[in-house]
Amino acid sequence: MVAIINQAHQVISQYMDGFLLTHPALERLDQEPIITLKEPSADCVPLVSGGGSGHEPMHVGFVGQGMLTAAVYGELFTPPTADEVLRAIRHVDKGRGVFVIVKNFEADLQSFQTAIHQARAEGIQVKYIVSHDDISVDTKKNFQKRHRGLAGTILLHKILGAAAQSGLSLDELEQLALSLSTEMATIGFATSSAHFPQAALPLFDLKEGQISYGIGIHGEEGYRTVAFESSEQLANEIVNKLKLRFRWQEGEEFILLVNNLGTISELEQGVFLNDICQLLDVEGLRLPFIKTGRFATSLDIAGLSVTLCRVKDGSWLDYLQADTTAPAW
Amino acid sequence: MVAIINQAHQVISQYMDGFLLTHPALERLDQEPIITLKEPSADCVPLVSGGGSGHEPMHVGFVGQGMLTAAVYGELFTPPTADEVLRAIRHVDKGRGVFVIVKNFEADLQSFQTAIHQARAEGIQVKYIVSHDDISVDTKKNFQKRHRGLAGTILLHKILGAAAQSGLSLDELEQLALSLSTEMATIGFATSSAHFPQAALPLFDLKEGQISYGIGIHGEEGYRTVAFESSEQLANEIVNKLKLRFRWQEGEEFILLVNNLGTISELEQGVFLNDICQLLDVEGLRLPFIKTGRFATSLDIAGLSVTLCRVKDGSWLDYLQADTTAPAW
Repeated sequence: MVAIINQAHQVISQYMDGFLLTHPALERLDQEPIITLKEPSADCVPLVSGGGSGHEPMHVGFVGQGMLTAAVYGELFTPPTADEVLRAIRHVDKGRGVFVIVKNFEADLQSFQTAIHQARAEGIQVKYIVSHDDISVDTKKNFQKRHRGLAGTILLHKILGAAAQSGLSLDELEQLALSLSTEMATIGFATSSAHFPQAALPLFDLKEGQISYGIGIHGEEGYRTVAFESSEQLANEIVNKLKLRFRWQEGEEFILLVNNLGTISELEQGVFLNDICQLLDVEGLRLPFIKTGRFATSLDIAGLSVTLCRVKDGSWLDYLQADTTAPAW
Repeated sequence: MVAIINQAHQVISQYMDGFLLTHPALERLDQEPIITLKEPSADCVPLVSGGGSGHEPMHVGFVGQGMLTAAVYGELFTPPTADEVLRAIRHVDKGRGVFVIVKNFEADLQSFQTAIHQARAEGIQVKYIVSHDDISVDTKKNFQKRHRGLAGTILLHKILGAAAQSGLSLDELEQLALSLSTEMATIGFATSSAHFPQAALPLFDLKEGQISYGIGIHGEEGYRTVAFESSEQLANEIVNKLKLRFRWQEGEEFILLVNNLGTISELEQGVFLNDICQLLDVEGLRLPFIKTGRFATSLDIAGLSVTLCRVKDGSWLDYLQADTTAPAW
C-alpha cells in the first residue's frame, strides 16, 4: 500500500496546514489543535465539536458560518485532551453559552466531559449532545457494546449549526439535539479494511470478495462477514436493519445521508445510492433531503454508511437547506 | 477487487438514476443520455459538454445554473454519438447560440465535430473549445501524442458557465475560452491503475510501491514509473513540469485545482495539497483560488492531478467565485 504522505508522524499537521491554506476564513487558535472561524457571528450560540483525526473532513471541514464555530482534533484515532477541548470552549464563548457535540466513544467522552465540567466551574454555560447514531451493536463484542457516533454526527453539525445561526438559545439547542439524536440511525459496511499511514497491515482482516457489515470508523470490524453478491443485496441488508430500528410507516419522511467512508469510487457510490433510494421508495418513504459524499471517513477504508433521520419537524429540513460557509458540507 | 455494483452493463444507467433522484433540479432528456436543467435561464448562452462515462462527477455533476446547461454521456470510456450530442445542442438552443466544450480525444472530437457541423447546417450558431490541458505528452507513445483534456476542463465549465450567466455573447465566450485554454496545464500521477467494474485486471501494470507520472483518465499509463518516496517528491516532480510549461515569474497569480482521480484518501489528498502549495509558495506564486476534491475521475484509480491556470484577467476569479447550483462544484 503506497500512502501519499511524508513522515507518518506529520500527517495530521501537514493535512491541517494544507486545509488552512485553502480556507482563508478559518484559522488555527495559537498553536493548539483547534480550527476556528476568524470572524464568528457574535449574536448566536457557538458550536464546538471534535475528536481524533483520520476521519477527514470531519470535523474541521464543518467549521463555518451556520455549522461549527470551532473543531478540536487529536492525533490519529485519538481524541484531543480535555485541556484542548476546554481552550476551544473558552475561546468561542461570548456570553450566550456554548453547545458541544461529542461522539459516543469512551476516550472522547472522558476528554469532553472533563472539559465541560471545568468550563462550567469557570462560569461558562455549556450544554452538549452525545452523538450515538450507530445501530450495529453486538453485546458479545467489547467494542460494539455502545452505539458509536458515526456520520449522523454531521447531520447534528448542520441542523444544530443552522438552528444556532437562526437565533435558538442554548436550552432550545439542547432540546433540538435530543429530538434529533433519538431519530437518527447509521449503519455501514466495508469491502476492505483501513490501514494506518505507512503501515502495511490492515486494521482488521477481510478476505478479498468479502463484506463486513457494521464496521466502525476506527478499524473496528463489523458484526457479520459475508461474500459480496451485489450492491442491491448490500442495500437490502442495510435497509432491513434500519427498518427494524425505525419500524416506519408508509409515507413517513426521512433525511438520507450516504457517506463514503474513504475509497469507494464515485461510480460505485452512485450505484449504491440508487439501490438505497429504490428500496426506500418501495417501502413508501419520502426522502425530501438526500446527500452523498465524504463526510466522516476512516482513513483508506473501502466502505459506505447510510444514515437515516426521521423528520419530526419541518424546520429540520429548513436548517439542512440553509446556507453555510463550511467547506465540506 | 470487489466493485459495489450490480450487473456491469447497468452501472452507468443505475448511477444516473441515483444522480437524478438526488438532484431534482435536473432531468434526463427523454430517454437520451443527456442530463439537463429543468429550468435553464432563457437570457444567456447555454453551455454543453460531455464525453464517455467512468469520470464521475464529470460531466453530469456540473450541470447547474452558472455552469453547464446540458451534459451528454456515453458508455464507459466511450463518447456519446454525434446524434446524441446534436440532440443536446438542439434542446438547449434558444436563439443565442450554443457554446460547446469538448475534451481533446480522437473519438470525442469525431462525435462533437460531426454534431456541431450538423447543428450549424440547421441554422444553430455553435462555437466550441477543445480542452487540451494535459502536458504529459510523449511523442514516442501513440496515446500520448496529443494534449488530452483533463481536469482543466472543469475550470472551463465553471469560468465559462459563470461568464455566460453574466451575459457574455457567444463570440465573447469563444474569446474567453481561447484565452483560458492557452493558460492552463494539468499533470497527474497514480499509485495504482483503474479497473473496469467486475474486471479483475488493472488497465495498466504498476507494481506495488511504484508511481506512474502523467497517467491519463482512460487507463493510459504515464510517461515515467519510479519508486514512491514521499508526497513531497511527487509534488516536486509535478511542480517542475508545470514550471517548465509556464516559465512563471515571482508574484504571478495562478488558479490551483488539485483533483482526486478516484480513490486517494482525504488525508493523503490534504497532505499532497499542502506539499504543492508549499512548493508554489517557494516559487513566489500567488494562489488566489485553490480548490480540491473529486472533479474528473477515472473509475477506481489511486491518483491525483494538479491543474494550474495563469490568471490573465481578474474577472476569471470572479467567475470562479460566482454562485452555481451544479452539485459537484
